[in-house]
Amino acid sequence: MLSCASRGSELTYVPVSELRTDPISGRKVLIVEGRAGRPSDFLVPSSTPARQAAAEDNCPFCVGAERQTPSPSLEVFDKVGNWQVRVIPNKYPAVAAHLTIPESSGVQSPFSPPEQAYGAHEVIIESARHVQDVTEISVEQLATVLQVYRDRLKHWSTDPQIRYVQIFKNVGFAAGATLEHIHSQVVAFPFIPAALENEMRGASEYYQRHQRCLVCDLLAQELDQRTRLVFEEGQFAAFCAYAGRQPYETWILPTKHQSDYRELSNDDAFSLAKVLNQVLRKLHVVLPELSYNLLLRTVPFGEEESAPYHWHLEIVPRTTHLAGFEWGTGLFINPLSPERAAKMLLEAAV
Amino acid sequence: MLSCASRGSELTYVPVSELRTDPISGRKVLIVEGRAGRPSDFLVPSSTPARQAAAEDNCPFCVGAERQTPSPSLEVFDKVGNWQVRVIPNKYPAVAAHLTIPESSGVQSPFSPPEQAYGAHEVIIESARHVQDVTEISVEQLATVLQVYRDRLKHWSTDPQIRYVQIFKNVGFAAGATLEHIHSQVVAFPFIPAALENEMRGASEYYQRHQRCLVCDLLAQELDQRTRLVFEEGQFAAFCAYAGRQPYETWILPTKHQSDYRELSNDDAFSLAKVLNQVLRKLHVVLPELSYNLLLRTVPFGEEESAPYHWHLEIVPRTTHLAGFEWGTGLFINPLSPERAAKMLLEAAV
Repeated sequence: MLSCASRGSELTYVPVSELRTDPISGRKVLIVEGRAGRPSDFLVPSSTPARQAAAEDNCPFCVGAERQTPSPSLEVFDKVGNWQVRVIPNKYPAVAAHLTIPESSGVQSPFSPPEQAYGAHEVIIESARHVQDVTEISVEQLATVLQVYRDRLKHWSTDPQIRYVQIFKNVGFAAGATLEHIHSQVVAFPFIPAALENEMRGASEYYQRHQRCLVCDLLAQELDQRTRLVFEEGQFAAFCAYAGRQPYETWILPTKHQSDYRELSNDDAFSLAKVLNQVLRKLHVVLPELSYNLLLRTVPFGEEESAPYHWHLEIVPRTTHLAGFEWGTGLFINPLSPERAAKMLLEAAV
Repeated sequence: MLSCASRGSELTYVPVSELRTDPISGRKVLIVEGRAGRPSDFLVPSSTPARQAAAEDNCPFCVGAERQTPSPSLEVFDKVGNWQVRVIPNKYPAVAAHLTIPESSGVQSPFSPPEQAYGAHEVIIESARHVQDVTEISVEQLATVLQVYRDRLKHWSTDPQIRYVQIFKNVGFAAGATLEHIHSQVVAFPFIPAALENEMRGASEYYQRHQRCLVCDLLAQELDQRTRLVFEEGQFAAFCAYAGRQPYETWILPTKHQSDYRELSNDDAFSLAKVLNQVLRKLHVVLPELSYNLLLRTVPFGEEESAPYHWHLEIVPRTTHLAGFEWGTGLFINPLSPERAAKMLLEAAV
């Protein structure tokens, strides 16, 4: 028995080893159950190491500490004038309009010259209170955050130099978070990142063959088979990804075709918040020390007409270490089948 | 000052933020120094967590414990008949000839059907003694290991179903190692993994334009500029990768053109062992708790004539967590410039 697979369910262990190809990105994943039973020489640290005792007292994202952060580019206030959500420039940006290659660095490139890392890097502070996950804020508050995602996309799409905006969230140390106060990040690029290029290629090739949206067809089959379905609500469905890179990787999609997250209505933001809240509550049940990345995938600016894309959220719990296998090949090994994961999430009582 | 960048050198801190494209794979990396100074709420665990007290006593790879492992597919003995290196099938394989998709799993794919994970997964045990890193075995022993790499490639190239063999090593918990006893892994695939496909595409496009080997040209420029050079010995050179994904990412290459690692002579294996030993000693100086992945890149079987590839070793120290940024975009953020890293490694006394 896989201990993680048997928790809270009556599933029996069936060894599975198969190679799956993600239909959108072309990414290959090996589903290999049974590897979780490997011996280990290491006393594996908890995925959530101890937090600094002073984390909350010194938190730059809490109400009252606004002077510790750069001036906001956007603030959302409640009815009595307190801020609910703040968007600020990242103090440690990966890309920024004002960062340039120093003349004095003397770096010579063997081939393609180094380019300026043009772009923008923002932080969305999602609560004035010091809470850590989406499940600790109200669905209404979460809906506001999801509207702010949309509004930052709208904002950056007016910059003619920006081609793609990656919005993501790191929750927990194992997912790369450095500050625990609930927040997301917005990175605006002057090019389409490789991961999105792969997905656009997959969507475009499928469209040329079938004259239909790849993700719409994929979704129809998921809703028909229901073997990977986790949750449904209104115009949204959540299911475990067929070629999930990590155990419990779950995607949330609009069931009606929508390429562009900028088209999300306020009502839809509320439904989406309900689904995201429920899925994360379920993930906390099956993974009590949940660390995860949330990724928003949407059509790049200027590509709206080139192929039908279909925006969605990807939730990637971080439970296994990437090792030489993944770094060397670009393949992933997932030790829990998405069908088993979906059954456990479907049954998880929240 | 970046504390890690100032150790043992008189470098002053110059902020750099640039976008670099790896000339072979096309991978994009942002070099963003200064981010290491970000605040953290987490008490960051050591990259090497405590080892199990019983690790050495229960080690299945130690001399005397041979019965705990599957029968070897290859053994190398010393002059008095003791084994020096053993190759065994991995007890927890990611791919294997005998693993099949169970008929009963009832998995239905939305599009491409799941395939059988055909292949082979072996472990190379690199010492009879319980040591953990390459720097703890002799250069002669390491040369034998590097010859075994070559011989496993030769072996698997006789299987007409196998297209690529990825040989890699995980050292330390942060690099995904589960057992500490020194070993490498061999994974034989019936297809060319995505990471290699990207590199072959880059090499082929360059060849079509210039009728020369991309890596030979790259190497000539590195040896001329010497801004990223770490070590030279005989027919081999080590330098920090121009678009390194992680701080101190170091590549070792033959300075004369050689596409295929299977062509490595025994004399060359000895020179290569000397370089690998020196580079790892230097890495241990700058990163006292070194965890790393070692990746062998060589031409896929059957592609020897299609484009000039140039085999090499990639050493990727694992010092930063991959977060939503990397998972979402396929880009990497490297907080230490390869030029600064190379200077520190060049100066590290071993």
